[in-house]
Amino acid sequence: MQKGTLFLIPHTIGDTRPGDVIPQKVFDVTLNLDVFIVENIRTSRRFIRKLHPEKNIDEIQFLELNKHTSPEQIQNYLQSIEQGKNIGLMSEAGNPGIADPGASVVALAHQKAVRVVPLVGPSSILLALIASGLNGQNFAFNGYLPLDNQERIAKLKQLEMRSKTEEQSQIFMETPFRNNQILEMLLKVLQKSTLLSIAAEISTDTEFIQTKSVAQWTNNTPDLNKRPAIFVIQA
Amino acid sequence: MQKGTLFLIPHTIGDTRPGDVIPQKVFDVTLNLDVFIVENIRTSRRFIRKLHPEKNIDEIQFLELNKHTSPEQIQNYLQSIEQGKNIGLMSEAGNPGIADPGASVVALAHQKAVRVVPLVGPSSILLALIASGLNGQNFAFNGYLPLDNQERIAKLKQLEMRSKTEEQSQIFMETPFRNNQILEMLLKVLQKSTLLSIAAEISTDTEFIQTKSVAQWTNNTPDLNKRPAIFVIQA
Repeated sequence: MQKGTLFLIPHTIGDTRPGDVIPQKVFDVTLNLDVFIVENIRTSRRFIRKLHPEKNIDEIQFLELNKHTSPEQIQNYLQSIEQGKNIGLMSEAGNPGIADPGASVVALAHQKAVRVVPLVGPSSILLALIASGLNGQNFAFNGYLPLDNQERIAKLKQLEMRSKTEEQSQIFMETPFRNNQILEMLLKVLQKSTLLSIAAEISTDTEFIQTKSVAQWTNNTPDLNKRPAIFVIQA
Repeated sequence: MQKGTLFLIPHTIGDTRPGDVIPQKVFDVTLNLDVFIVENIRTSRRFIRKLHPEKNIDEIQFLELNKHTSPEQIQNYLQSIEQGKNIGLMSEAGNPGIADPGASVVALAHQKAVRVVPLVGPSSILLALIASGLNGQNFAFNGYLPLDNQERIAKLKQLEMRSKTEEQSQIFMETPFRNNQILEMLLKVLQKSTLLSIAAEISTDTEFIQTKSVAQWTNNTPDLNKRPAIFVIQA
């Protein structure tokens, strides 16, 4: 029996009309899928309903994949793919496998020689980077910064140094309710000439994207509280 | 007078139906643009004609931005935006500003306080990463490897080491006609246990994406000659 395909399905970021950020092919593929591995079942149900108001959501099988999912459970998630069914893998926002636990299922698919097909959709990291005007020939995404203040300062200085010595722009993020705090720290810790790009609520009607030097941002900052944001720096 | 907006317009990668990888919003925005800054005028004309067969291509103003464009020319590229016109910035493939000279225009837009709006489309780098199953919480894109053989080997070893010590997956690319050569080198230089993901002709009908250890790839490689490819490694 021929194995099914693992489709990587993008998800809107924030309150965006799907057609603004999701190509037609994603509509077509998801219409015919009835098994989804998802980070958050409630969010995914709502999203699929938005894409396909006519689709019977109760006939869809959802398998949850988040920090509570054990490796043993994940081992069983591709069973129906081996029986010829296609499966969709979906994050809560953006692309599965970036800053979410989706990569473990993709890795398993490769081990089982299952075909993996990534579909195009919004990535806040990539959109922030291209809109920053900073170096897109060489860049790194560093996920979340350490929680501890001293480690966080050390990490920021290390990223700033690397962005200078390797000409590699450095991307990172923060939990939205701590955004104002991290922004304050950035302006204190980084050199005045370092360029800092702030991209908040990307792809929504309240999108904010600006790149300035640390000196220019000082005493002139946006309120980022609870607004999902991506930061890019280049010294 | 209100300034115009700089829209970052994605471009298909390879021979793909636009609807497979381009959201409706990109069709809508480009329909109303009549100034484009592009990497390659011929490619861009063809792409716009594909998106909008009814649009009069001869009324579009194209400004070329590639390695032959001087910084002085670029300084003038946003003139019409300051007069209230919207401009589209477009790469030859994928997103402008990634592995192309587009970032210089975006940086200029920020200096002039021009609004920058990134639109969603295919990025071979991002699609290769999510489809690799390798670490998407922490990754770096390193562009092209050095041309000199000794420098290239040193760079590969450095990237492999960093992928191990920092758990940062490392992405890079090669000119398509040298792909088989670099693949051969990867299998010689990297450790047998290092995971190597090969993603070729992403988003097209001949897409090839597989992740295996260097040991598993050895004596079992695809022909990558002239097939645009992205490599991701994780030790």
